[in-house]
Amino acid sequence: TVDGDRLWRSLMELAEIGAYEDEQTGLRGVRRLALTDADAQGRRKLVSWMEEAGLTVRVDAVGNIYGRRAGTVPDAPPVMIGSHIDSVATAGAFDGCLGVLGGLEIIRTLNERGITTRRPLEIASFSEEEGVRFGTDMLGSAVAAGRIPLEEAHALTDADGLAFGDELARIGFAGPHGVRLDPPPYAYVECHIEQGPLLFRSGTDVGVVTGTQGISWQEIVVHGRAAHAGATPTEMRADAGLVAAGIVRHLRTMVDSGDYGRLRATVGHLTLHPGDTNIVPARADLTVDLRNPDEECMVRAEEHLARHLDRLQETQDGVRITTRRMARTSPVAFDGRLRKIVAREAEALGLTHSPILSGAGHDAQEMAAVCPAVMVFARGEYDGISHSPREYSTAESCTRAINLLAATALTLADE
Amino acid sequence: TVDGDRLWRSLMELAEIGAYEDEQTGLRGVRRLALTDADAQGRRKLVSWMEEAGLTVRVDAVGNIYGRRAGTVPDAPPVMIGSHIDSVATAGAFDGCLGVLGGLEIIRTLNERGITTRRPLEIASFSEEEGVRFGTDMLGSAVAAGRIPLEEAHALTDADGLAFGDELARIGFAGPHGVRLDPPPYAYVECHIEQGPLLFRSGTDVGVVTGTQGISWQEIVVHGRAAHAGATPTEMRADAGLVAAGIVRHLRTMVDSGDYGRLRATVGHLTLHPGDTNIVPARADLTVDLRNPDEECMVRAEEHLARHLDRLQETQDGVRITTRRMARTSPVAFDGRLRKIVAREAEALGLTHSPILSGAGHDAQEMAAVCPAVMVFARGEYDGISHSPREYSTAESCTRAINLLAATALTLADE
Ligand SMILES: NC(=O)NCCC(=O)O
Ligand SMILES: NC(=O)NCCC(=O)O
Repeated sequence: TVDGDRLWRSLMELAEIGAYEDEQTGLRGVRRLALTDADAQGRRKLVSWMEEAGLTVRVDAVGNIYGRRAGTVPDAPPVMIGSHIDSVATAGAFDGCLGVLGGLEIIRTLNERGITTRRPLEIASFSEEEGVRFGTDMLGSAVAAGRIPLEEAHALTDADGLAFGDELARIGFAGPHGVRLDPPPYAYVECHIEQGPLLFRSGTDVGVVTGTQGISWQEIVVHGRAAHAGATPTEMRADAGLVAAGIVRHLRTMVDSGDYGRLRATVGHLTLHPGDTNIVPARADLTVDLRNPDEECMVRAEEHLARHLDRLQETQDGVRITTRRMARTSPVAFDGRLRKIVAREAEALGLTHSPILSGAGHDAQEMAAVCPAVMVFARGEYDGISHSPREYSTAESCTRAINLLAATALTLADE
Repeated sequence: TVDGDRLWRSLMELAEIGAYEDEQTGLRGVRRLALTDADAQGRRKLVSWMEEAGLTVRVDAVGNIYGRRAGTVPDAPPVMIGSHIDSVATAGAFDGCLGVLGGLEIIRTLNERGITTRRPLEIASFSEEEGVRFGTDMLGSAVAAGRIPLEEAHALTDADGLAFGDELARIGFAGPHGVRLDPPPYAYVECHIEQGPLLFRSGTDVGVVTGTQGISWQEIVVHGRAAHAGATPTEMRADAGLVAAGIVRHLRTMVDSGDYGRLRATVGHLTLHPGDTNIVPARADLTVDLRNPDEECMVRAEEHLARHLDRLQETQDGVRITTRRMARTSPVAFDGRLRKIVAREAEALGLTHSPILSGAGHDAQEMAAVCPAVMVFARGEYDGISHSPREYSTAESCTRAINLLAATALTLADE
């Protein structure tokens, strides 16, 4: 079993990089968006920890960081333990970091005990998993798995028009190594906080993740007509903000209708232009985040939304609507054999466990395209709230999940 | 009659200051928000024009610029001709500028013809009429008229937290003169583009403005709870953006209900925090602009909205709503005698005219508290659209309205 105190100290130390005071909650949160200076500082800290642990570090052309510990069979494909250290704008200390630092803690423990494995172990920290800066989530792992071409990733821009490729070079993490994993890993394992309420509410120690939902992200731009708020008769307006508000509400009625299975829908971003008190908005920019564990339901929801937008455009004078795809993944089921191994190791460790579908997207779902993959969920506090400074998991929950990750990785590494 | 070409050239020259290319319309617009560098440049241009026209210029402590032409009765209270040169973010060349540069053109014409008046004529250019930068419209004229204390105006801040007083000093227009007009003007006259469709649709030359509507501006902040867009069950969310969208839609149902007279409602500004694709919004900031020609209807609309917000807060778990008053004016009726003079002068000039209620707020409604005031509306093109780069008025429409303003001002100045 790993050193839970050391793991916790590393988590807290990394959380200082990009720490901010959250006005609303009064809590100390983490803001370490991909390829910002804070992310660069976090990456340098991780690399130094990897090197201290004796790992051979390489950085690839999309900024993914890998740290390898040799096995006794030198050319055997490695068991990869990965996740990410970039964060959303209002994050806690655990999302992603637990998986990467948990992997590091496993290496430190093996080093201390002088334990060797047949296969190499490789810690992976993937770029822009959150997708909040450049608009596509699981970006680094999707490039490594071959789903998204490197050039496409490099060309993505943030809200200020800065390109991923330029920002990666700027922070010194445009590495010399190729992005494809060749040979692919023997297996990929990832530990993550649940980010949902199930383990917390049921008091279960750990989750054995069965798979991930589909994710559909798009940007919608509603074009209307700027006009004077006082002098323009209501019937002469083409109010982009009013149309956008209708879209936000309509998404919720889609969810509530039950017609699209277990659909979740979120508008996380919405701005009006020019954004002045006395101007009818000329334009509204919003993002739509749809989630669905069922691909067929997801496609129907997307089609319904597209038709709804068409209808708005046709029936509302002066309104034009454009959409842009940001990200799209289908549901992924994790490897059955690996899930059985995780469940068996949980039993062996005396942990209560249950199968659980992930609500969030994870690097593991990208890796699942190139090798058997599986995930372990650590229990979160406060109904598992995440993407919020309220996000919290106890040292005990973290340690339990990393012990299970270690047992699973070691079993696989000796196969 | 004034020199319409010279008036047009001045309008177009001023419109170059703060000019921008509007992406959406492909038009060249004006962006000269109060107390920005562009506004400072526009102010310097205006002062130099005033000085060239022989006016005695003074700037007061709220940044209002006055240029006086002496009358033959030296101590007589002046006839004031005013408006503003600050603009919204997506403006045209006419809103405010026509009134100020029209006044200047009247002075130029009188100088050329060697015409003197009994009373002094005073051109006024008021600060922050639009209210879009510091949140309160008609700010400079409201301070001059004594409705808003100078200290309160100085303390107002913009979105970046910059204070009006500091910005005024920065651009060099914190003048040495007291803000109160003592003695008050003998009369106040203002020419403005209509900013509405009535003159355009009826083909009427000019409007004789009967008064202005009430204006109610407030900022609403909806506090919810940041949460993961993928992992958070719908029923566990406190989605500030969804609540805000409901407020936007509710305002429109209030307008459509007819229960609040001729209410107009606009949400011109709405932002979500943190504003990331995969985060349920923790907070939404929005502005509400209500207009009503009837004070009793306005009060009922405000009360209904307040109750609606209370109810949302009570019924939606985890949602808290706060409001902040930004600006509030009651409907104002312009002086009956002055309106008759305007109508008579319109007849004398052979202009078709009709009485018209202003949809927008104007400096004249503040001046109406200290002296008899009246307004002339110039016809706008394209249904009078304003607060948009589409805003346009022909040289003929502008010249006609300024000729009427001149005749009115001269009549009053010789009383
Ligand atoms: N785990 C996590 O927060 N991933 C980000 C991608 C998503 O929005 O699901
Ligand atoms: N005329 C004008 O645009 N005034 C600004 C104040 C308002 O919003 O009515």
